[in-house]
Amino acid sequence: MSLVIDNVGELVTNDEGDGLLGLRRDMAVVVEGDRIAWIGPRGEAPAADERIDADGGAVLPGFVDSHAHLIFAGDRAEEFGARMAGSPYTGGGIRTTVAATRAASDDELLRNAARLVAEARRQGTTTIEIKSGYGLSVADEARSLRLARTLTAETTFLGAHVVPAGHDADDYVALVRGEMMDACAPYSKWVDVFCDRGAFDGDQARAILTAGAERGLSLRVHANQLAEGPGVRLAVELGAASADHCTHLSDADVAALAGSDTVATLLPGAEFSTRSPYPDARRLIDAGVRVALATDCNPGSSYTSSMPFCIALAVRDMRMTPAEAVHAATAGGALALRRDDVGRLRPGAKADLTVLDAPSHLHLAYRPGVPLIKTVLHDGVPQ
Amino acid sequence: MSLVIDNVGELVTNDEGDGLLGLRRDMAVVVEGDRIAWIGPRGEAPAADERIDADGGAVLPGFVDSHAHLIFAGDRAEEFGARMAGSPYTGGGIRTTVAATRAASDDELLRNAARLVAEARRQGTTTIEIKSGYGLSVADEARSLRLARTLTAETTFLGAHVVPAGHDADDYVALVRGEMMDACAPYSKWVDVFCDRGAFDGDQARAILTAGAERGLSLRVHANQLAEGPGVRLAVELGAASADHCTHLSDADVAALAGSDTVATLLPGAEFSTRSPYPDARRLIDAGVRVALATDCNPGSSYTSSMPFCIALAVRDMRMTPAEAVHAATAGGALALRRDDVGRLRPGAKADLTVLDAPSHLHLAYRPGVPLIKTVLHDGVPQ
Ligand SMILES: [Zn+2]
Ligand SMILES: [Zn+2]
Repeated sequence: MSLVIDNVGELVTNDEGDGLLGLRRDMAVVVEGDRIAWIGPRGEAPAADERIDADGGAVLPGFVDSHAHLIFAGDRAEEFGARMAGSPYTGGGIRTTVAATRAASDDELLRNAARLVAEARRQGTTTIEIKSGYGLSVADEARSLRLARTLTAETTFLGAHVVPAGHDADDYVALVRGEMMDACAPYSKWVDVFCDRGAFDGDQARAILTAGAERGLSLRVHANQLAEGPGVRLAVELGAASADHCTHLSDADVAALAGSDTVATLLPGAEFSTRSPYPDARRLIDAGVRVALATDCNPGSSYTSSMPFCIALAVRDMRMTPAEAVHAATAGGALALRRDDVGRLRPGAKADLTVLDAPSHLHLAYRPGVPLIKTVLHDGVPQ
Repeated sequence: MSLVIDNVGELVTNDEGDGLLGLRRDMAVVVEGDRIAWIGPRGEAPAADERIDADGGAVLPGFVDSHAHLIFAGDRAEEFGARMAGSPYTGGGIRTTVAATRAASDDELLRNAARLVAEARRQGTTTIEIKSGYGLSVADEARSLRLARTLTAETTFLGAHVVPAGHDADDYVALVRGEMMDACAPYSKWVDVFCDRGAFDGDQARAILTAGAERGLSLRVHANQLAEGPGVRLAVELGAASADHCTHLSDADVAALAGSDTVATLLPGAEFSTRSPYPDARRLIDAGVRVALATDCNPGSSYTSSMPFCIALAVRDMRMTPAEAVHAATAGGALALRRDDVGRLRPGAKADLTVLDAPSHLHLAYRPGVPLIKTVLHDGVPQ
């Protein structure tokens, strides 16, 4: 099956073209099967079986959401409402979600995650990472990843999300890096640790991450969300693909990131939904750090699946330019997942893209909250 | 034609029920023609011609967007991008839009406005106010309102948006309150003045508003967006339905609003898109002021049509509770337009409502950026 998208007003390639986004104007894109086959001036495209008229709209690579927690049951709307009302909330926080997740059937968990993946896709996300981390037992973490694997290749073992109730921290670390890792590794591409104040410390994180690397997993780290600490520098030292959050950084953290292949993945949805100060994207970019944007979609601290919303926040509250934010949500996410087949549009890349009901990428920040995603192609197939 | 919406998990009535929102659970709503005919427990509704299954989702009054500038041509995406990149922008600002609007055909203006009304409706807005203000000549203001009147009953004459290039301010005020008012009043319900630093002063605003009142128009005022000034107190003194923006308020302004029937209409989209400090909704509500939320949809300072986005901002950045924000976006907007047939759900009210793809009103703030509007009824008709 071949398909031409014609009348593209602005094409964001993240490849050859103008500026950071590799912009090209008045283009057409031809898709063969699940790959981009041809890019060139509109009206000059080779014949194809089907045609989509972009009607002068912008075409972008599909968003790459490199950080999402989608395997869970229940929601925490009441907790959110209480927090926003300034009430002292005495609910269970993450433990509420762990209990609901453990009690849920495979079918319930999968349906909920699939609903969120579909919701994200309608908003232009064509690659999504999914973490475990609400099971926190060998069996529940393994099934979380087994279910996640049916939805994405980008699965992350996050047994080290929090120490579950009734466990000694060091005993739990031993479990995570031993039996739990063995059970989860077959379904996982990545291993991740929440290395932060009140979570896992640097030594615990190192023990788990190195055990994961020994099983052939690649590394990513929840780092420096709540406070400065060892997370970011550990991520860089161990060659992690990404240090995620990066809200509280020392100059040494910024320098370490700038001199590394580790991407700083910023998650402004979390700061939005917890009324916390945003990470300083400007400082990172100006220092030469490579930056990604992702949703952190989860029921506790950031229940958004919307990459356009994160782009608008990044521009408004993290002082990114619209081009930087769009780049971070596409090519940046791909880099954070060490993928070169997504996040850019060029012949041979995956035919994962979005057509906007707007003439330029600027509109994603200029028109905040407005659903501008008109058409999504995933694996070359209109969704 | 009659229609039942059954399986409503949470019904926001803004009438009889629990709390500020008049919440009722496990309900059904019957619509006859364009009106609500019956509200009661689910499963007990009288027979109807059609049935919508809310599937446990929340049902809310349609949003009432009491402040939008939809009659214009062109957009100002480049200006937005430059502002967000911190570049000194030397473009024309509002004058760019005035020139494009004057140059556009009636058909272009109407198509653009109708597109935005449809976009807003898909996001749950069932009542929308539309202002003139980009014509700034007798003929262009009158045609703006004539076109707006084909889209809504809530039309507002805003000839006093800015003094157009080449005009003396006092001469322009005389034109607005004389010939322009005469030409526009037949198409207008409201008259509005931008009373602020760099716009019209208190005396000029008073002259225009009183001239409008003499023609039978009701009053609303753009007040105190950019700086403290006389706008809010003038609105209260003249009995305006709404003082809009209210970003910079003295204690006397707050006290005046609290002792009046004038609603404070807050427009956080404008602060979002200009990186300005937000109005202090908490201070207003705690003082007893009645508050509305609206989009201020316009191509210069707030190009969003999304009331859910404004609700999420109001909760995050203006310290409103989710219930207060939803109330302000429905009943608050109705009050700001002095309407009692919209903004609440009770027998006899207009059948303007939304069905959410979520179990509660909380999700509008809890799930920012996510399109949660599943079904919209306007005048009793599914859109
Ligand atoms: Zn996370
Ligand atoms: Zn306005």
